[in-house]
Amino acid sequence: MVTSTNTVTVNGERLWSRLMEMAQFGALPEGGCNRQALTDEDQAGRSCFMDWCRDIGCEVRIDQIGNIFARRAGLDESLTPVMTGSHLDTQPTGGKFDGIYGVLAGLEVLHTLSENNIKTARSLEVVVWTNEEGCRFDTAMMGSAVWSGAMPLQDAYDLRDRDCFTVQQELTRIGHLGEHPAQCYKVHAALETHIEQGPVLEAENKVIGIVTGVQHMSRHRVIVQGQETHAGPTPMNMRFDPMMALSRFLPRLYAMAEQHAPDGRLTFGYINAAPGSSNTVPGELEVTVDIRHPEQKQYVEMLAGYKEIVEEACAHYQLPVELSCFWEAPGVQFADRCVNAVRNAAMANSYPSRELVSGAGHDACNLSRVAPTGMIFIPCEGGVSHNQKENALPEHITAGANILLGAMLALAEE
Amino acid sequence: MVTSTNTVTVNGERLWSRLMEMAQFGALPEGGCNRQALTDEDQAGRSCFMDWCRDIGCEVRIDQIGNIFARRAGLDESLTPVMTGSHLDTQPTGGKFDGIYGVLAGLEVLHTLSENNIKTARSLEVVVWTNEEGCRFDTAMMGSAVWSGAMPLQDAYDLRDRDCFTVQQELTRIGHLGEHPAQCYKVHAALETHIEQGPVLEAENKVIGIVTGVQHMSRHRVIVQGQETHAGPTPMNMRFDPMMALSRFLPRLYAMAEQHAPDGRLTFGYINAAPGSSNTVPGELEVTVDIRHPEQKQYVEMLAGYKEIVEEACAHYQLPVELSCFWEAPGVQFADRCVNAVRNAAMANSYPSRELVSGAGHDACNLSRVAPTGMIFIPCEGGVSHNQKENALPEHITAGANILLGAMLALAEE
Repeated sequence: MVTSTNTVTVNGERLWSRLMEMAQFGALPEGGCNRQALTDEDQAGRSCFMDWCRDIGCEVRIDQIGNIFARRAGLDESLTPVMTGSHLDTQPTGGKFDGIYGVLAGLEVLHTLSENNIKTARSLEVVVWTNEEGCRFDTAMMGSAVWSGAMPLQDAYDLRDRDCFTVQQELTRIGHLGEHPAQCYKVHAALETHIEQGPVLEAENKVIGIVTGVQHMSRHRVIVQGQETHAGPTPMNMRFDPMMALSRFLPRLYAMAEQHAPDGRLTFGYINAAPGSSNTVPGELEVTVDIRHPEQKQYVEMLAGYKEIVEEACAHYQLPVELSCFWEAPGVQFADRCVNAVRNAAMANSYPSRELVSGAGHDACNLSRVAPTGMIFIPCEGGVSHNQKENALPEHITAGANILLGAMLALAEE
Repeated sequence: MVTSTNTVTVNGERLWSRLMEMAQFGALPEGGCNRQALTDEDQAGRSCFMDWCRDIGCEVRIDQIGNIFARRAGLDESLTPVMTGSHLDTQPTGGKFDGIYGVLAGLEVLHTLSENNIKTARSLEVVVWTNEEGCRFDTAMMGSAVWSGAMPLQDAYDLRDRDCFTVQQELTRIGHLGEHPAQCYKVHAALETHIEQGPVLEAENKVIGIVTGVQHMSRHRVIVQGQETHAGPTPMNMRFDPMMALSRFLPRLYAMAEQHAPDGRLTFGYINAAPGSSNTVPGELEVTVDIRHPEQKQYVEMLAGYKEIVEEACAHYQLPVELSCFWEAPGVQFADRCVNAVRNAAMANSYPSRELVSGAGHDACNLSRVAPTGMIFIPCEGGVSHNQKENALPEHITAGANILLGAMLALAEE
């Protein structure tokens, strides 16, 4: 019933041209996109996607949190479906591929099957998860979190943007508050195709990343109290200057990350000194610390090391400090069923590949709690993502979609 | 003709109660003041001061930039006057003493002389300089800069606040755009009494600071370029992370300040990493560096050291960096005539005193370009200023005014 994966391949040009077309919604001057969740631009992108799905005969439905499901019916409706998908929303200065590629690669798989009149035993579904980026509404992977039961629907509805509009208001406004329950159902397997968002595949000339899991990660806030004083009259040794504590803990934290190389990651993405006047010693310093490691043991060591180093530095300068963890995601081990399907497809297509642990969180992390899940990575230029310059080669775009096609076909017949 | 400084002293209680009365204009809940330049609160404070001056028989005039001059005529109108003064405007969350003390101490000297029927050879003038703080209109020491010729009148008129009101509009609105030319005239000597705004006098149990000058100072902006990347997937050694450069130059800069202890000052008052997302390696880091030293040679060494250390750290991580100086004020050496008058008065009154170099800029810096100038410091609690908690002891308030009285009397007879 199924044509071999060697004889059917996706239409890479069509997939590329859809990626470019989608990038017009919220297009930015430097080639990137600003299509944040539930904006007019997001609405336009979502509508465009639904039109494409209906054009190839898919049934499209929207759930109560705005997740879009495009379904291509299988031969046996009693079998649980094979799912793929990602997100269409972007960072404020995001790229054309992060998330979008996973959605449109799924659409391309369905389109390829349709034009080749290939029927599958299981139904296939392509999903757009609402608000993966968590920029406008500050919870990343929101739609998949609600669907997988990790976040109550009402909590998601009540999230507010900076102008105080809620998710529920904005879903209603753009007409994407659907009737279907935002609740998981039995899925045979779920796959997500994505650009790596890191430089490893490119550096090693690999085309496919077989993702075996996602690293442990957490985000922390450090608030150091100092004493606001005029920059001129107070001698250095009479100051209570939180920047001095920073000057002590920052190099030590980077040194700790080096001890956990090559997999340990430490990022200081936000920093602010109040009141922020160039001639006033800051009264308060706030800095965020993002800590990641794929191995549980080393991750825990990094957490302990971070705490010890920051507290020692602040104590050294007699400055009160408050440490808090505001987000944590335990590491994920993907399902053998899915990892094997991806590995087999990579081998069948003879693409250079390697196993990888994802450094970033994805909707697939939420799905992995309720369904056998896996991911496929392709290289992106310089590893750059969350950036207008984000780029991927057309041949890699095509390759990843072919792997998705092969893996979904295999899973759909199990 | 002149009563000895030992027999006439100021009325400390009257001075203190005027300080408290002035603090009611723009009073804040935590005991501080918000009386920014040319606001309704500033207008009320200025009117109150002018009433007090007229009550003791002074002639009051306002110049074209709103500087207020209260004059007590001397016996010989052909002699140049002795001037004192400071400012009545405050920071948005300022204290009750910074500036105000210098104005009201001057008023108290004139009041003391009047009630004791003491005539002086030279006229005495108490001045309120407009917009010293430079908060609402972003140029500190504005009124004294215009008067001393350092800033064209029209440039000052054109300064705008955040609501786009100009200095000229606001001077007109509060009725303080005077007719007298905002232009310096010959002055025999100018003194400014001020809280130290630093902790040195308090720490050494001194009551009077004989200020010999103002340190060299400048403010610099460091902008380090990095590459925005996702916090997860990029290995540490493949990042272009401006925070790594910071972790290298910050401790080295503080170490340099220590080499120039105890007088060198280094302050990092503003810091920002863009885009400021906790899970993105910053693409840009901006930090301000305020550099001060009283000695020219060491100040120049600090400037060169700062440049070298920052550039080396950025080169080490292959990050482009841009250094710019956005404000510089050369150091000031006060006039022997004035420093001696203050020293003699301190000795005559037997107050514990020490010589000091001011760490902060004052209206006296502008005056020193066109007139023999000096300053008197008194301790403030914990060295805290630009803060609602700013505080000074009544006995120190009285002591400083007595020194001003003694020094002005001596200078007025020269």
